[in-house]
Order: sequence, then structure tokens, then C-alpha cells
Amino acid sequence: MIQQETKNILGLQLPTDPRWVDLASISLEEILTDHAYCEQKAATSCISLIQRYPDRQKLVAELSPIVTEEWGHFRQVLAELNRRNLPLGRQRKDVYVNKLMEFQVKGASEEDMLLDRLLIFALIEARSCERFKRLSEGLDDEYLQKFYRRFMESEAGHYHLFIDLAETYIPKEKVRKRWKEWLEYEASVMQNIEVRGDRIH
Amino acid sequence: MIQQETKNILGLQLPTDPRWVDLASISLEEILTDHAYCEQKAATSCISLIQRYPDRQKLVAELSPIVTEEWGHFRQVLAELNRRNLPLGRQRKDVYVNKLMEFQVKGASEEDMLLDRLLIFALIEARSCERFKRLSEGLDDEYLQKFYRRFMESEAGHYHLFIDLAETYIPKEKVRKRWKEWLEYEASVMQNIEVRGDRIH
Repeated sequence: MIQQETKNILGLQLPTDPRWVDLASISLEEILTDHAYCEQKAATSCISLIQRYPDRQKLVAELSPIVTEEWGHFRQVLAELNRRNLPLGRQRKDVYVNKLMEFQVKGASEEDMLLDRLLIFALIEARSCERFKRLSEGLDDEYLQKFYRRFMESEAGHYHLFIDLAETYIPKEKVRKRWKEWLEYEASVMQNIEVRGDRIH
Repeated sequence: MIQQETKNILGLQLPTDPRWVDLASISLEEILTDHAYCEQKAATSCISLIQRYPDRQKLVAELSPIVTEEWGHFRQVLAELNRRNLPLGRQRKDVYVNKLMEFQVKGASEEDMLLDRLLIFALIEARSCERFKRLSEGLDDEYLQKFYRRFMESEAGHYHLFIDLAETYIPKEKVRKRWKEWLEYEASVMQNIEVRGDRIH
């Protein structure tokens, strides 16, 4: 049932290993720190897209408020760490995102590079959304269940936004074809990545 | 009178060349684009400081809202560009900031590097504040006078914040000594830099 729903809503080909949320629930401090940096990277990467494509007015107009939102999320996670008397902690190597980057077309046309950049965002937002759903359902702490429910809802909207942006600048058929390739690749990354409870991905 | 005030409030050793605001008023589009990127760089650089010093809780706590504020400024300038049917435009080489960076101590102690990083911020905020004051007084457009008055007020607060942060982590006397060196260096940069109306600095 959950698997079906995930496929329908987000297109992801492989649901998260059920052991992940159990591991996460015993290393909440690590999850919160990693989550804070996920939000930070989302904000910074949106800024980079704006810097790279300042002439694409729709992209600039739609990503500018997303930066505010992602940074607001960073601050919410930071507040949660502080509530628990925890410092922010250091950023960790992001194996998942690094693996995704390897699939980006290199030395390709401007259009192909823009497409991949937008689809990577869509993919990370979709997977984060799925992970937040798992946390909102599988953690024991009722406060954190609600906390992650709210994050889940906002990331779901972002996933659509990046696909829509891709379809603004690139023919729909091409976007769909490449999105399908990305979904397959992402599933293979998820299948081979170590399941660890101290990372969002 | 203005010169005296600038010295008192911000410590800057050299007031802006009076020709600058006249040049700026005839290249407003360029000024707005450059200003937008100044705000973007302020936001991105504060994020970098947080990433670099995640264990300094006061720094993290105080800079997190500044990122929100600077990005809010970016969006205000973008809205102003849009109101004038102008695109964001491309980022330009930042000669002023590059020149400042040259004065940073290299291969120094952690403390000295943190000090310089915070003082560069204080300096850029102070100079931006002074420039916004010039724009708020010297532009013909009444709407933009108010627009820049608001920016001036908020940057003035930031300048203090970075000095205060430095004094939190580093002995006050050392902060004051180095700040004096930075003010002198900045004055020499301003004296030798080309006066151009298409740049905030």
C-alpha cells in the first residue's frame, strides 16, 4: 500500500528500506544535524541556479521564494536541535547526492545541462519527501511525527515545481524521457547505498 | 559634516567620492543588478560562516536570521528590477571585495582567520551602509531615496553584529587593533579603485 502510494505520488521506483526509520529513531541527533544541512544545501543550490540562469525570469521568480523557505526549514531544524541542547554539528559527506551527480550529462548542450540540474533537484525533493513521510509515520516521538509531517508536505510541492520549470524551458516529451532515466538511476543508487540511520538519504 | 558623521558612525576612513552617486543615478539598472548580487553574496557568505563554524553557537544563532534578512533584500531588489521590466542580469566581477580578500591573513591561527572573516563582513556592511546613505540622499527618484534609506538602516545594524561576534570569541583589544588595520587598508582600496556608477562598491 505504502509502496503503491509512493510510486503514484512521487514516481520513485524503490521505497525506502523499512529498517531505515528504526535506525533513524535511535540516532535522532544525527538525523537532525544531517537534515539541517540538507535544507542548507537546498537553499545554497537554488541560489546557484539563480546565479547561473539570471536571464530565465520564471526560474529566478520561482526559486527566490524557495530559498527563503528552505532557509526557514534550516532554522526550524536548528531550533529543534537547540530545544534538545544540541549544537548544529558538522556537515557529513553526502554519498547519495554525490552518486546522483555522477549521472549528470557532462559537456552536453546548455539545454541538457539545465534539464539535469532541475531533475536532480526534483529527485532529491521527492526522496526527501518520502523519507520525511517515513519519519512522520515511524518515529515514536509524537512531536517529531508532526514536525516531519509538515516538512513532508512542503517538499512535495517543491518536487512539482522543479518538473514544471523543466517543462517551461524544455519540450515535455524530452523532460519525461529523461525523468524516467533519472528515476531508474536513483532506484539503483538507493539499492546499493548503505542503509544508515544517521543520514536523511 | 557628512564626512564627520560617516567617520563617527561607521569608522570608515574615507568617504565615498561625491561623483559616485551622480554616476550611479545615470546607470540605475546596473546599480540595481549589482546591488541584488551584493545581497546574494551576503546571504551565501553568512551560510558559509555557519558551515565553517557550526560549533560556535552564538555565531550560528545570530547569523541564521541574517541570511533570511539578506535574502529578503535580494528579493526586494529583484522586485524593483521587475517593476522596471528589467531582468536580474549577470553577476559582475567584484573588484572591491577581491581587493579586501587580499588583506586576509593566510596560513594564520584559527583565531586570526575567524577574526579576519568577521571583520571583512563588518567592513563590507559598513561601506554598503555608507553607499546606501549616498543613494538615499543623492538620487533624484523619491521612491528610490526611501528604498535605499531602508537598506541603509538595516545594514548599519549588521556592521555592529559582526564586530560584536568578533569580540565574543577574540579578546577585545586584539579585535580593535586589527579593525583599525582593516579600516586603513579599506581606505587605501577605496582611494585606488576606479569610481564607477555601475557598482555598489
